[in-house]
Amino acid sequence: MAYQVVFQPDDISTEAGDGELLLAVADRAGLSIASECGGHGVCHLCRVIVQQGRIRPRDQDEIIEITDTPREVLACQTQVAGDIVVQVPVESRVADFAEAIAASLSPPAAALLASPLSPLVQTATVKMPSPTADDPEPDRERLNRAILQQQPDWSPLTIDLPALRRLPLTLRDADFHASVTVADEGHSHRIIQTNAAHDRPLYGLALDIGTSTLAAEIVNLGSGAIVAAAGLPNQQFRYGADVITRIIWSQEHSDGLEQLHQAIIDTIAELLQDLCQQCSIEPEQIMTACCAGNATMISLLLQIPPDPIRHAPHIHAAEHVPVLSAHQVGLPIHPQAPIFCMPAVSGYVGGDITAGILAMGLFATDKLSLLVDVGTNGEIVVGNKDWMMCASCSAGPAFEGAGIDCAVHATSGAIQNIDYDPEDDCFTFVTIGQTGPVGLCGSGLLELLATLWRAGVIDRGGKFNEELDSPRMRERDGQPEFVILWSTENATGRDLALQQADIENLLRSKAAIYAGITTLLDQVQIPVADIEQIYLAGAFGSHLNITDAITLGIIPDIPTPRVAAVGNTSLAGAYLALLARPARERAANVVAGLTYIDLSAAPQFMDEFIASMFLPHTDLSRFPSADTVNDKTNIVQG
Amino acid sequence: MAYQVVFQPDDISTEAGDGELLLAVADRAGLSIASECGGHGVCHLCRVIVQQGRIRPRDQDEIIEITDTPREVLACQTQVAGDIVVQVPVESRVADFAEAIAASLSPPAAALLASPLSPLVQTATVKMPSPTADDPEPDRERLNRAILQQQPDWSPLTIDLPALRRLPLTLRDADFHASVTVADEGHSHRIIQTNAAHDRPLYGLALDIGTSTLAAEIVNLGSGAIVAAAGLPNQQFRYGADVITRIIWSQEHSDGLEQLHQAIIDTIAELLQDLCQQCSIEPEQIMTACCAGNATMISLLLQIPPDPIRHAPHIHAAEHVPVLSAHQVGLPIHPQAPIFCMPAVSGYVGGDITAGILAMGLFATDKLSLLVDVGTNGEIVVGNKDWMMCASCSAGPAFEGAGIDCAVHATSGAIQNIDYDPEDDCFTFVTIGQTGPVGLCGSGLLELLATLWRAGVIDRGGKFNEELDSPRMRERDGQPEFVILWSTENATGRDLALQQADIENLLRSKAAIYAGITTLLDQVQIPVADIEQIYLAGAFGSHLNITDAITLGIIPDIPTPRVAAVGNTSLAGAYLALLARPARERAANVVAGLTYIDLSAAPQFMDEFIASMFLPHTDLSRFPSADTVNDKTNIVQG
Repeated sequence: MAYQVVFQPDDISTEAGDGELLLAVADRAGLSIASECGGHGVCHLCRVIVQQGRIRPRDQDEIIEITDTPREVLACQTQVAGDIVVQVPVESRVADFAEAIAASLSPPAAALLASPLSPLVQTATVKMPSPTADDPEPDRERLNRAILQQQPDWSPLTIDLPALRRLPLTLRDADFHASVTVADEGHSHRIIQTNAAHDRPLYGLALDIGTSTLAAEIVNLGSGAIVAAAGLPNQQFRYGADVITRIIWSQEHSDGLEQLHQAIIDTIAELLQDLCQQCSIEPEQIMTACCAGNATMISLLLQIPPDPIRHAPHIHAAEHVPVLSAHQVGLPIHPQAPIFCMPAVSGYVGGDITAGILAMGLFATDKLSLLVDVGTNGEIVVGNKDWMMCASCSAGPAFEGAGIDCAVHATSGAIQNIDYDPEDDCFTFVTIGQTGPVGLCGSGLLELLATLWRAGVIDRGGKFNEELDSPRMRERDGQPEFVILWSTENATGRDLALQQADIENLLRSKAAIYAGITTLLDQVQIPVADIEQIYLAGAFGSHLNITDAITLGIIPDIPTPRVAAVGNTSLAGAYLALLARPARERAANVVAGLTYIDLSAAPQFMDEFIASMFLPHTDLSRFPSADTVNDKTNIVQG
Repeated sequence: MAYQVVFQPDDISTEAGDGELLLAVADRAGLSIASECGGHGVCHLCRVIVQQGRIRPRDQDEIIEITDTPREVLACQTQVAGDIVVQVPVESRVADFAEAIAASLSPPAAALLASPLSPLVQTATVKMPSPTADDPEPDRERLNRAILQQQPDWSPLTIDLPALRRLPLTLRDADFHASVTVADEGHSHRIIQTNAAHDRPLYGLALDIGTSTLAAEIVNLGSGAIVAAAGLPNQQFRYGADVITRIIWSQEHSDGLEQLHQAIIDTIAELLQDLCQQCSIEPEQIMTACCAGNATMISLLLQIPPDPIRHAPHIHAAEHVPVLSAHQVGLPIHPQAPIFCMPAVSGYVGGDITAGILAMGLFATDKLSLLVDVGTNGEIVVGNKDWMMCASCSAGPAFEGAGIDCAVHATSGAIQNIDYDPEDDCFTFVTIGQTGPVGLCGSGLLELLATLWRAGVIDRGGKFNEELDSPRMRERDGQPEFVILWSTENATGRDLALQQADIENLLRSKAAIYAGITTLLDQVQIPVADIEQIYLAGAFGSHLNITDAITLGIIPDIPTPRVAAVGNTSLAGAYLALLARPARERAANVVAGLTYIDLSAAPQFMDEFIASMFLPHTDLSRFPSADTVNDKTNIVQG
């Protein structure tokens, strides 16, 4: 008995037998649905939405009838049990996926991904004749000849020793039908792996190495699909909260540099465990990586003494780190995997910013743009396709939640949006994954600060209104605090509260950023009003309420349509460079044209910083749109 | 008081003060005498010969008056104490040394060394401005710019991670005045070491990896001077006497490949200890190496499974091994030193033969030439600049002394020439270094066999004449043997004797080689008489008596002026490739034009082998010049 299956949005209709798997039906209908686990339900790439009809979970008896509420299922785990209508999301389509990712990038960034993708590694499968007395060509030359016949532009083609060591047995075990993975080295190519012929995809790792947080994605290098994503706190935290204290640690301890290196490697290893589980691959299957991070993080990753960064004139070891192999760096992926580090313009404006400029397409825009990347170090870029200047300021890790008791990493259960209603004395909030709350992530902390100020719980100086009549307001260890969620309302088993010291940390961070922005604009003599676009990147993620960011005085008060919270642009740029040679070339271009301005040499920075330690600022005329808040505290400018 | 010092052969005359060092006098006279130890008497490069006059050993009171017998001294350790005449040998002159070495090579080989030398590593010293706020270029880019200003053709210039790791501190410790060592990678260059500025020479290692013996030289890469040389038995011997048994070992033991690799590395480490002591450098100062060896030895050095070499069609892993770094190979020299392996045409004719063809200049000669390299494996090349064919035969390690009780390695005390007088029943001989005898090396063994046959001590079949009336003739363990040196006459404390089994081993070796030569010539249809030049290379060294080689029937009977014993041509070729890019390029050219013939497929090889198991051969008509010997044994051809 044949059923009718309709795939949307293409409106492709096909017949299917009872019990046939949706993945097979789609395949027959000519729709390439992503799948990398051989249909075992582990890669989760083949998600589709059944809008109506009868389905049966694979190898089960139960039939599910879908009428009103569409149901998300894995195409490889779902059998046809009647006529059905299926929606295939763009991210589940092999052909469309890179396009879908590109749509979330700025148009110039998306253009860098123009097909075909050009990661640092590629693969080829060749069949060679077996050697005979009349054809005694040695293994390496036989393989080279076969590959270069198929890929002439890979010449000259060399081979890594580990791959050469495996070659004689691999070729003979595989009857001279082999797949090779080749690293693109610009002027030459290098075979880094040989296997019996296969058509498995290659994977790469995009990595953002932040001072407080590491974030990473595993990417299918053929399709551009992000098959796993995760983030973790940087284990270097135990050696100091910011780059300066860590540089000092590396200098003052004989094995300090090694410890800091190992802490990054350990964090990456832990990330990889999670990532590889998400997409059911082994770390050894990751054949390349692209790392974006500030100059100190990249130095520590590579065990290069970072000390000169700390002292004027703040020189870092290399603008361009050569492409390295994973085993040299210590990255626990395929040992011969080529590692690309984003180039860095200065000791305090690193590859993370180059990545952000790539992702936001600043290199191609006419608009006068401001990219503000808020991390433990805050970096600011101003300019457009014709010129770019940058600066940095030490924001501290508060926005990343470090040292704040109620803060958590931006994973499941983290509150990312929050609002306080003083009338009912209650909070409403949204958590990541819609699960029970465990704490606040960056954007949550910031919205908390804004809503508490609007409600009059804190004043313009960041002090709690201690006369407030709320059971939430209390003291702990001699310090006032405001309870956000009682122990009964959250999954931690204890009260989650914001303390006075937390607010001061957050204020210092926001003041540093605002002071950095205004000092840089002053140095380049550009009035705030001329800024056509602000990209607010970093710890907040992309869920940030822009009005709140202005209300708090983190960024200048310009019309909100000109401001976008863009999340982790460092990781987005690493993703681009992982996949596309034009992105890597553009990165080199960006650093060549980017000028660093040392704000520590600008006398007004400290004045701006002190004036910014209020909400939104001592000078309210700078924030006309923030004047609606309850607080009317009178500020005497210092 | 001023003395007159005359330097010969240039007849340069100069004045010198009493007590002035000869090295300083020569320097003032404009003669560049080699010296690398700062005049401390350890490098022994500044050897000169005082022909007459008065000298004083440095810092001693004794004055030596030289009249009749010239005296070899170190110029750095000898003071002027009167008028003197000094001979400066060519090898002590910096400028002339490469020329002197070249003179001992064939003219086409010497042409490969045309100056300037082009080893795989070069050095440059640059002074950079220190970074300032106005000139904040990072370290790597600052260094690159300074180097490329001096050496524009080194672009693109990359840097190894270990060198990058050292860069920030090296530059600052050296006040931005640094020396770099750079590896030439063809299309690019790579910085492998950075140091504070210095003018020390670079050293390289030329290495011949034989199945039974390793030989090596340390070479000053600036002048081409060989500053140390040594040889040692291959420690792989414990795993089998020839390549076949070692390949089987590597296959039949789970860690066999690792053991065989480690045995070579251990042998090299022991060699390096000796070599480095000779020239007072550290192994870490050796910045490149060139290895020549048969395909099995190179596979084992690199831990590539050699198994396919053993089975028809005898395929080796790579004709061209990519240039590797010492740490990848496990060579205990500078970890980033580039290692060049001589390309190998087949599983049984390896890079040692490519090296021999280079050293003998076969690639450029019009003469129909035969290169016979006698090692544990015997290899034969026939041809000239227009064509070359090659073959191999298993000679066994007898000529290298393995398994022969009275044999020793070719070092101090080894008998290299020997003659027996049956009238007086006594031996006369020459040892290496003119020291007390400890045994016989390859050429000594061969001359011993020839002289004993001429004296009638052994017959054409290699059997001892047991009726001989000599106390030297005796039995041990039921086997006849002939005492060469009584325990009182040599430094071992025991009698040195040649046993019947030793003779059989030597006969098998010589028969294999002669059979190989004649079978190959037959395959290419060239009569022996057409051969214009025979180069006899390998275990015998260059002291071999050519008449004896023909007398014994190792090589065909052609006029002796056409035959040259050329010693270790594998090492000589490695020396060339170590120093000169044209030699490395020529090596690639040689293997591309060399055709291998598998003699095991030629039915007459075994017949030729059996017929050659006599002295000189069953068919005496092939050896007209050998018919003067005493032995008239009648041979019935089998």
